[in-house]
Amino acid sequence: MAVPYHFSSFVFVFTLICALGVSLGFNSTSDLDDSLVYLWPLPSEFTFGEDVLAVDPDLSLAVGGDGGNSDIVREAFLRYRGIIFKHSTRFSKFRGRSMYDISKIRIIVHSDSEMLQLGVDESYSLLVAKNDDHSIIGEATIEANTVYGALRGLETFSQLCAFDYGTKTVQVYNAPWYIQDKPRFVYRGLMLDTSRHYLPIDVIKHVIESMSYAKLNVLHWHIIDEQSFPLEVPTYPKLWKGAYTKWERYTVEDAYDIVNFAKMRGINVMAEIDIPGHAESWGTGYPDLWPSPSCREPLDVSKEFTFDMVSGILTDMRKIFPFELFHLGGDEVNTDCWNSTPHVQQWLQDHNMTPKEAYQYFVLRAQEIAISKNWAPVNWEETFNTFATNLNPRTVIHNWLGPGVCPKAVAKGFRCIYSNQGVWYLDHLDVPWDGFYNAEPLEGINSASEQELVLGGEVCMWSEVADTSNVLQTIWPRAAAAAERLWSKREATSGKNITLTALPRLHYYRCLLTRRGVEADPVTNKYARQPPNGPGSCYEQ
Amino acid sequence: MAVPYHFSSFVFVFTLICALGVSLGFNSTSDLDDSLVYLWPLPSEFTFGEDVLAVDPDLSLAVGGDGGNSDIVREAFLRYRGIIFKHSTRFSKFRGRSMYDISKIRIIVHSDSEMLQLGVDESYSLLVAKNDDHSIIGEATIEANTVYGALRGLETFSQLCAFDYGTKTVQVYNAPWYIQDKPRFVYRGLMLDTSRHYLPIDVIKHVIESMSYAKLNVLHWHIIDEQSFPLEVPTYPKLWKGAYTKWERYTVEDAYDIVNFAKMRGINVMAEIDIPGHAESWGTGYPDLWPSPSCREPLDVSKEFTFDMVSGILTDMRKIFPFELFHLGGDEVNTDCWNSTPHVQQWLQDHNMTPKEAYQYFVLRAQEIAISKNWAPVNWEETFNTFATNLNPRTVIHNWLGPGVCPKAVAKGFRCIYSNQGVWYLDHLDVPWDGFYNAEPLEGINSASEQELVLGGEVCMWSEVADTSNVLQTIWPRAAAAAERLWSKREATSGKNITLTALPRLHYYRCLLTRRGVEADPVTNKYARQPPNGPGSCYEQ
Repeated sequence: MAVPYHFSSFVFVFTLICALGVSLGFNSTSDLDDSLVYLWPLPSEFTFGEDVLAVDPDLSLAVGGDGGNSDIVREAFLRYRGIIFKHSTRFSKFRGRSMYDISKIRIIVHSDSEMLQLGVDESYSLLVAKNDDHSIIGEATIEANTVYGALRGLETFSQLCAFDYGTKTVQVYNAPWYIQDKPRFVYRGLMLDTSRHYLPIDVIKHVIESMSYAKLNVLHWHIIDEQSFPLEVPTYPKLWKGAYTKWERYTVEDAYDIVNFAKMRGINVMAEIDIPGHAESWGTGYPDLWPSPSCREPLDVSKEFTFDMVSGILTDMRKIFPFELFHLGGDEVNTDCWNSTPHVQQWLQDHNMTPKEAYQYFVLRAQEIAISKNWAPVNWEETFNTFATNLNPRTVIHNWLGPGVCPKAVAKGFRCIYSNQGVWYLDHLDVPWDGFYNAEPLEGINSASEQELVLGGEVCMWSEVADTSNVLQTIWPRAAAAAERLWSKREATSGKNITLTALPRLHYYRCLLTRRGVEADPVTNKYARQPPNGPGSCYEQ
Repeated sequence: MAVPYHFSSFVFVFTLICALGVSLGFNSTSDLDDSLVYLWPLPSEFTFGEDVLAVDPDLSLAVGGDGGNSDIVREAFLRYRGIIFKHSTRFSKFRGRSMYDISKIRIIVHSDSEMLQLGVDESYSLLVAKNDDHSIIGEATIEANTVYGALRGLETFSQLCAFDYGTKTVQVYNAPWYIQDKPRFVYRGLMLDTSRHYLPIDVIKHVIESMSYAKLNVLHWHIIDEQSFPLEVPTYPKLWKGAYTKWERYTVEDAYDIVNFAKMRGINVMAEIDIPGHAESWGTGYPDLWPSPSCREPLDVSKEFTFDMVSGILTDMRKIFPFELFHLGGDEVNTDCWNSTPHVQQWLQDHNMTPKEAYQYFVLRAQEIAISKNWAPVNWEETFNTFATNLNPRTVIHNWLGPGVCPKAVAKGFRCIYSNQGVWYLDHLDVPWDGFYNAEPLEGINSASEQELVLGGEVCMWSEVADTSNVLQTIWPRAAAAAERLWSKREATSGKNITLTALPRLHYYRCLLTRRGVEADPVTNKYARQPPNGPGSCYEQ
């Protein structure tokens, strides 16, 4: 199946839309022009015209290809139809089906595989055109190799649709649209921390749903930390005694539910157990895991029970989390407890290990366990910084401490995820949207082969002072700035005057999030999570 | 139909549950006991036992009475079933229907009227009991005179149900429960301001849904103010040119949608146009409403066009808002513009009016228009403070400036709504939960006949610095403190050590809100909208 449009000069068009953005200004409300539809993140290649198309509120779905009949496609269509038609069109000026330009969305998916893994093909093409002599019938057509590409196409289509208050109709401006799109990076993540504060299932789902609006594709679930152990582990049923309360827990079925909810939106869930340094809560149910009752972290390296426990947890978690990456943490390991606890000290002596070597020993044994379960281990960068050469070559290095780590990691042949805390930690409230936007995962990496080892990046929502009350407003809209960096072409996001090329679109996108019920903060706040500084339009705050 | 339980000593039971709350402490997480189920707001009368009942995930609905077949009941049942069964019970230890104690909820509604107005009967009785020799079959039974009473009973039932992580079953602790409940006040309101910041439809619905969890029953929609005019008015189609942007608007159908969504939850919508002082945005579409282009408020009192406009707006709004109260504002009227604009000054002279008299003239004409459309007018207290004796006797005085106004208003025979800004303005971030809780609408009013004129009260969410990003966390949990004051018996909420009788229940209720996806702030924050001050359990923050 070929899309019956042909365009060539995409660079020209990109320049044009930026120029449009500038001329429409957003400097005062009177400048707003509903003939402009902004997209976020910016597609890879696109052209558009000057038509205004009316979309039928009874928009129907037609599917094709081996994968078109997928429930993932069908449910996504229903979700997006709900998003597109939030306002009643009962008194639309376009009465009767024949009056609408777009009454059908055709989704063609070539592959019937619903396997969702790192690097799954998320590309799609989207055509939105009126029926005329030169084209097929008036419809929107999404063509993709996988259902996940189709999801990305639906998101883009939904962003093209705008409710017009004059005609009370959903319209697509600037048609015909022809978009060919694919992500720049395969890993576009957001981390949630459910240990410092428990997040109810509905809140996690709300975050996942919002991620899909920005085409993010990995939820890194930092489930457990020293403060609480909310997850059920059937093999070691006392572990979730480390939850704050009996009510702040996730059952195995809850975890399945989250993984499935995410999958339906093309989002992988990467689980983490942060060992050995961030695991005090494990000992609430099994105090033997502590070096001693008075010195509780890191996990006791001297006991086989500790590694039996790691293995048991990973066995149980493997059934829940199909993603090929598993995060083993490994950051901020203070070995004082090992040094000061007699039986651990004795074990170190017996094994002729320094505490630092014991740290390496722990991490490498945990890696072996993960690899034996067909996981590629992810570790925070301290493991790389401390004993890079001994890490399993399948290790993915997760940067956080600062810039310059991914260049070193990929130079040694490791894969890397970029999360430089100076720019991509959402709990750093003093980093504004452009700090997120300008962060470049490939900075300092010049060879193509090394660049390929950078899987992408992730914004991290550590929750010491974030809970249900404020987590969404801490995440958005800044996570969206990173999402465009990770999705769109480097030349579209770099070396530009982003106040002109990105900021107006981000304003628009933030308001789009609010219309969808996502509690996104004002874009131009000096500090994240501040209230708007006075009355005004969403599009200017 | 008689509920086959009989209890007498309700005061005893109330004392008992408070004592339980104390003994269970909430001082540390280990004290938490899932055998305790807290209710918010506290029902009027209740007894309970010591049974633990398992609730069937296939819970079915049986209806009775003339009103049992209402869609309002059926849809509410489905909503609450979703709320009660958020966690999968696939691996529940109670397999097979026969193992469950409660497989059915029977809802008996005596009246088939779905009329929702001030004073609608919201009483209900709720019985949750195991089947045994002394009782009917194992089920929950709600009996109410109206569908709205049944909704309140469903909310209470949902609060009795708790997911037990041990058995993976929804359980009701302390059964049998027998509750007879009714509200203390007929008007239990929350005000939303969509002029200082536009709130999308989904956000307003989220607020309405959350109101139903606290048994609030009036959404006071402060739609329009000087900053923006978001509502469509068909008779004067240029009015919503005063919206911030073309996208920050409500169509007539949107407003219908909100009214209907609220009605399905037993919530009336009281609309407001705040005239003549807070109406600058009207003139964006119709500049003749301004005294002059440079002096834009209050509305031009000298022109008949101004009153034609008020009449036209009210005619259009009457079709949307069936509630018997309509808010005409009337606060903060600074008449300088009238004095300084020549043609208005001339008019004042011609009519032998001082500006203050013109203010009264405006308010009374607007009242007449509202009354002619069969609305009882509500006015902010300045109207009463300035010319009480001339107000239409049907006027409801809306207190806000401080204490002591309702006593004066009811002494003169007016009805009153209590919203003392020192304690019930949600935008006052320095008022903690107990400030809201201890506010007493009947303070200083001793005669029963005068007390009856206090319709109730309302918490006000002015939105100068609140928008989609933070409005829910500014409202909750403090609005819940007021909601219990307005629903529960005075003796249950007054003269107690509320740190023992209310605070632990409010902690529990705040966490219940978060489980339902409501972004409620920590209870014990010094200032509202602050983040939690560190890692910890929802039940302690």
